[in-house]
Amino acid sequence: MKKQSNIYHEHHYKDKDRHLVAVDSIIFGFDKKRLKILLIKRNFEPCRGEWSLMGGFLKKEESLDDAAARVLYTLTGLKNVYLEQLYTYGDLERDPGARVLSTAYYALIDIEKYQEQLSNKYSAKWWDINNYPNLIFDHNIMVNKALRRLRRKTRTQPIGFELLPKKFTIPQLQTLYEAIHQKKMDKRNFRKKLLSHDFLERLEEKDKRNSKKGAYLYKFNEEKYNDLVQKGYGFEI
Amino acid sequence: MKKQSNIYHEHHYKDKDRHLVAVDSIIFGFDKKRLKILLIKRNFEPCRGEWSLMGGFLKKEESLDDAAARVLYTLTGLKNVYLEQLYTYGDLERDPGARVLSTAYYALIDIEKYQEQLSNKYSAKWWDINNYPNLIFDHNIMVNKALRRLRRKTRTQPIGFELLPKKFTIPQLQTLYEAIHQKKMDKRNFRKKLLSHDFLERLEEKDKRNSKKGAYLYKFNEEKYNDLVQKGYGFEI
Repeated sequence: MKKQSNIYHEHHYKDKDRHLVAVDSIIFGFDKKRLKILLIKRNFEPCRGEWSLMGGFLKKEESLDDAAARVLYTLTGLKNVYLEQLYTYGDLERDPGARVLSTAYYALIDIEKYQEQLSNKYSAKWWDINNYPNLIFDHNIMVNKALRRLRRKTRTQPIGFELLPKKFTIPQLQTLYEAIHQKKMDKRNFRKKLLSHDFLERLEEKDKRNSKKGAYLYKFNEEKYNDLVQKGYGFEI
Repeated sequence: MKKQSNIYHEHHYKDKDRHLVAVDSIIFGFDKKRLKILLIKRNFEPCRGEWSLMGGFLKKEESLDDAAARVLYTLTGLKNVYLEQLYTYGDLERDPGARVLSTAYYALIDIEKYQEQLSNKYSAKWWDINNYPNLIFDHNIMVNKALRRLRRKTRTQPIGFELLPKKFTIPQLQTLYEAIHQKKMDKRNFRKKLLSHDFLERLEEKDKRNSKKGAYLYKFNEEKYNDLVQKGYGFEI
């Protein structure tokens, strides 16, 4: 009986179709002023010479998450970037060369922090989010979905603090939100909404680089911040 | 030159690993009182006789979305169910029989509406969300993720109205939310929050089945409802 069950078992997988699976990563960067996106010029066919996300094929012996990290490192030198899975694109015609599924990942990083890691060996380049070239395949669709996800997340969770220095001013935080959401926000409203959640702690120091009067520096309360991330709602900008 | 480029092109895909890809669907149902989940007993190895989500393998000539719809139909008789992609599970050891990726989909349906479609040919069965059997592989993890997604979505979007009759009472709506969120909600607070968004229109009719005084019937304003779905935020229960 055991043997028969093994035959069924093997049979169950043996006659099934197998597929090429890719991973593609959307890397957003913030340079303390603007939101950017990291792109790479393809040096192979199809679409050689066109711009692309950081993509490559999944190997037999690695998880999807590991593949995304490996591909990103191989193409750019970036490592230890927290990549979050976005969506899997499974339409038949998405890659003109073959039927390839692609699981997209995204991240938002501090450009300065990763500047040294970013290898010049490859042709990865930061582009302004308002002015980047047309991308191969369905990569434009992926970027738009990642932007929507990023905006939703930063509206409902206090994500984004990783992008700021330990001590920051409210105007610095507003610049980050304005870059992500691509719109000017009302100064008083922003401050009011933000401070209504008590995960920000005002310090006694001021940042006086931009005005004589200076702007108070804040740090965030890690415990309350983590509570909000866990809850995943209740925070809204 | 054209020929050489084609050689590169073919080479690019030819030596890459190919993978088994499955789809697994989490079907939540609402019977006007409780939230349920549809499960099926596996009749093949591995894990024969254990309970599972609606799963099957992706074929060469179909998109991921089409595969999810086909598998659901084949196993249960259900069709025209709006399935939303949830997440792709790509760990190496998730299926004990082979390396299989799985893209999970989920839906929330009106149990009564689909009762006739649900074929008895197979062993699919509704289980209470608080009392269902342990599932194969990583299917418990999938269900928990789908529940979190459903709860988040119903907190930030006016989803769920599809599960109610055209005209409904506030208590009926509250029952739906309580089933999804698995907790009692405060009656006055619920009513107040809900009516603060003006996508509900009070009708002159009353539903008098549950009390002499009766409860006003409401319908939703489709335009305002769709605005909120589009925005994807700004609504919070």
